[in-house]
Amino acid sequence: MTKWRTEISSSGEDAFIRGKPLEEVMEMDFSDGIWLLLKGRMPSDEESDLFNTVLSCCIDHGVGNPSTVASRTVQSGGNGMNTSVAAGVMALGDKHGGAIEDCMEMLQSDKDARKIVEEKLENGEKIPGLGHKVYDEQDPRAEKIFGKAEELELDGESVKKMKEIQRIFAEEKVELVINVDGAIAAVMSDLGWEPELGKGFFIIARTPGLVAHVREEMDEEDFRREEGEYTGEKE
Amino acid sequence: MTKWRTEISSSGEDAFIRGKPLEEVMEMDFSDGIWLLLKGRMPSDEESDLFNTVLSCCIDHGVGNPSTVASRTVQSGGNGMNTSVAAGVMALGDKHGGAIEDCMEMLQSDKDARKIVEEKLENGEKIPGLGHKVYDEQDPRAEKIFGKAEELELDGESVKKMKEIQRIFAEEKVELVINVDGAIAAVMSDLGWEPELGKGFFIIARTPGLVAHVREEMDEEDFRREEGEYTGEKE
Amino acid sequence: MTKWRTEISSSGEDAFIRGKPLEEVMEMDFSDGIWLLLKGRMPSDEESDLFNTVLSCCIDHGVGNPSTVASRTVQSGGNGMNTSVAAGVMALGDKHGGAIEDCMEMLQSDKDARKIVEEKLENGEKIPGLGHKVYDEQDPRAEKIFGKAEELELDGESVKKMKEIQRIFAEEKVELVINVDGAIAAVMSDLGWEPELGKGFFIIARTPGLVAHVREEMDEEDFRREEGEYTGEKE
Amino acid sequence: MTKWRTEISSSGEDAFIRGKPLEEVMEMDFSDGIWLLLKGRMPSDEESDLFNTVLSCCIDHGVGNPSTVASRTVQSGGNGMNTSVAAGVMALGDKHGGAIEDCMEMLQSDKDARKIVEEKLENGEKIPGLGHKVYDEQDPRAEKIFGKAEELELDGESVKKMKEIQRIFAEEKVELVINVDGAIAAVMSDLGWEPELGKGFFIIARTPGLVAHVREEMDEEDFRREEGEYTGEKE
Repeated sequence: MTKWRTEISSSGEDAFIRGKPLEEVMEMDFSDGIWLLLKGRMPSDEESDLFNTVLSCCIDHGVGNPSTVASRTVQSGGNGMNTSVAAGVMALGDKHGGAIEDCMEMLQSDKDARKIVEEKLENGEKIPGLGHKVYDEQDPRAEKIFGKAEELELDGESVKKMKEIQRIFAEEKVELVINVDGAIAAVMSDLGWEPELGKGFFIIARTPGLVAHVREEMDEEDFRREEGEYTGEKE
Repeated sequence: MTKWRTEISSSGEDAFIRGKPLEEVMEMDFSDGIWLLLKGRMPSDEESDLFNTVLSCCIDHGVGNPSTVASRTVQSGGNGMNTSVAAGVMALGDKHGGAIEDCMEMLQSDKDARKIVEEKLENGEKIPGLGHKVYDEQDPRAEKIFGKAEELELDGESVKKMKEIQRIFAEEKVELVINVDGAIAAVMSDLGWEPELGKGFFIIARTPGLVAHVREEMDEEDFRREEGEYTGEKE
Repeated sequence: MTKWRTEISSSGEDAFIRGKPLEEVMEMDFSDGIWLLLKGRMPSDEESDLFNTVLSCCIDHGVGNPSTVASRTVQSGGNGMNTSVAAGVMALGDKHGGAIEDCMEMLQSDKDARKIVEEKLENGEKIPGLGHKVYDEQDPRAEKIFGKAEELELDGESVKKMKEIQRIFAEEKVELVINVDGAIAAVMSDLGWEPELGKGFFIIARTPGLVAHVREEMDEEDFRREEGEYTGEKE
Repeated sequence: MTKWRTEISSSGEDAFIRGKPLEEVMEMDFSDGIWLLLKGRMPSDEESDLFNTVLSCCIDHGVGNPSTVASRTVQSGGNGMNTSVAAGVMALGDKHGGAIEDCMEMLQSDKDARKIVEEKLENGEKIPGLGHKVYDEQDPRAEKIFGKAEELELDGESVKKMKEIQRIFAEEKVELVINVDGAIAAVMSDLGWEPELGKGFFIIARTPGLVAHVREEMDEEDFRREEGEYTGEKE
């Protein structure tokens, strides 16, 4: 057996988070504590501000998506808060929240914008971070995130690269907006976050929403039974 | 089938969180967004301040507890961030983080402090929120939480009741400190949070820690295999 | 830390299951292996036969229930077999498959049939194992299970008690059939299974169904998005 | 929303499993029910026999592996059977039980044995299904599985290919035994199972073991706390 070793935190009388006494962490805003925990240093005021915008943006997006449905369905089977919230977290797989992570990987790769667009077009693949089913001209949340990053002077190479990708794709194929996933991926990359944590911060940001939905479902008396149809044979 | 209905949020072009446009929520601190989502109204500045203290206090407590072990073990079996974090959330059952919820129920019950202590003594049960394996005189984190609540003039009936329970138990049986769970339960109760959300806000507060541990485990090459012993028969 | 100790099995060169070499277990029917693992002894031929009936009876029950919906929804979020099946297992909480366990507890309690019915009537509670939304006269699966138990001479005190409960309830209140959960609970009790394993054998029996549903969902291209409605305020 | 449609099963008065009335399935051995559910047809007597060998072989392998540790740890946090078993199923990721699936993919690929070995050697990759930390000459469980397949005349192209891979690898590099994962992958391939179900049948086979471990852990009074060490800074 490997004994558990960690650089993250300790507990008990001698409790630390990334080198800072827990009592000092208790003086911090929760979002700054999250930043410290995951990046090992405190954010600047500007970084903290932009990080809050990104977290709050992902906090909850209605009731029909897989994570919410999974959480509420598991609660409805007769389960407590922890099991039900966990089911929603599990649903956040490659196809649900995964576009942020994919887009961060793309932006942080060595390939330049033109190369990326060319390869995607050649392979007939979608570009993560581009396109929205409703917005044709601009996604107001993406614009808000970009505006905030600019105002705080935190927009860097990844924001620039994302906008280039959008411009080149428009020239080569069709005009698509940068969506909220693309904007988040770009500013999180410029804030120095690695793609390996792309799904992680989304989980952190969405867990409050799952808790709220599970709590709401607890007031439903009925067990959730959805309509199904058997399309197989009958002997 | 019951169609999904929610008072919490909507998505798409017309995105709201508890009546507020998502774009307005994006201007909020993440912790205020969490409060809004779960309580349906904005916190005052003082409530926001105290809520941050409580959340940051629970953010991570070292590597040996069940939730961290579960998350890291599941990652080590070859899993991504969402599945691994979910396993840690699942471990937060009745015995792990459950003392906060139990203590909130006790403090919000109709029974007064004396009645509670008497019943617990009669039934030979422990009192949630009292006692610490290391601290004999005071738990510094509990003191910090109480100090902050007092300073912000947010300490109310539950803080008073928790302190009475401690005092009466000391008279009747033995002097025990109010631990950090007891302090959190008391101030969260005075902030108007129901016990049904006691486990929920703990899950929100601890998820960042689980994400950090899963990320750290991803750098371990070896599969976790713990030492076990077969104590059964051999034919 | 407590080192892990187990009476169940060992691995490696010296592999045993409840005292039997793994190579001997490999000669057994899977259902006999399950029985050995959970009860620590081999079943008789009759016990094995009845146990197969019970397991096969629970193997899958269509697509609309919480466990199937949870598994398929989590797969649809972009997850592999293990995470998706686990979500379905999680959904098997107190209200989903829980009637078997509740009924086993009732049948194995010290209270006799009359006392049980009286208490349930007084408290206005439903009796686990009685009633079916479609069948008025008899539930054919329950009858099949009882028939098999009788034929194998394995029906004992619990089957008798379940039937008495049904008869007394019919006298006192209304005629309800013994449903399939009631029949399973009765024969599993007569087979000497404790209620603590009531949910466990149901999970074992249903996992193949969850695997089948996850596999089927993998062929769906579309992400599952259900219809939802926001009933909250809009500022 | 897409309504749920399935070819697997229906419930209620008109209950079918893959075209067979549930009452007929109740007459089957559980393992035959599993086969029917996942493959849509009944196994022959020989297929049924070999399938039982494979399932029983995977039923439980001691207490120190990630799935068992995850299940027992989650139970120890204060959780019921369903949540605890699910945590173990989750741990069965790419590195835990994944060798069977990888090996099935290799055996069912278009590449012949020589090409496979050459590519693996070139890329410096391990060959799934070869090698054992204890057995140098032969893995007795693999031999038993091959023996059974031969006896039942069910060994086909995949068994042949697995043995060729072993022989060519021995010529080119070093003599390694075919391990139990390799034998299972080979016979399951010859039984016509696709790799997409490789993890699925392993989950089915191992779930009884997880149930047994969770039940055993329920008798432990103590909360599992493992030893950890903080290797980070202290300010």
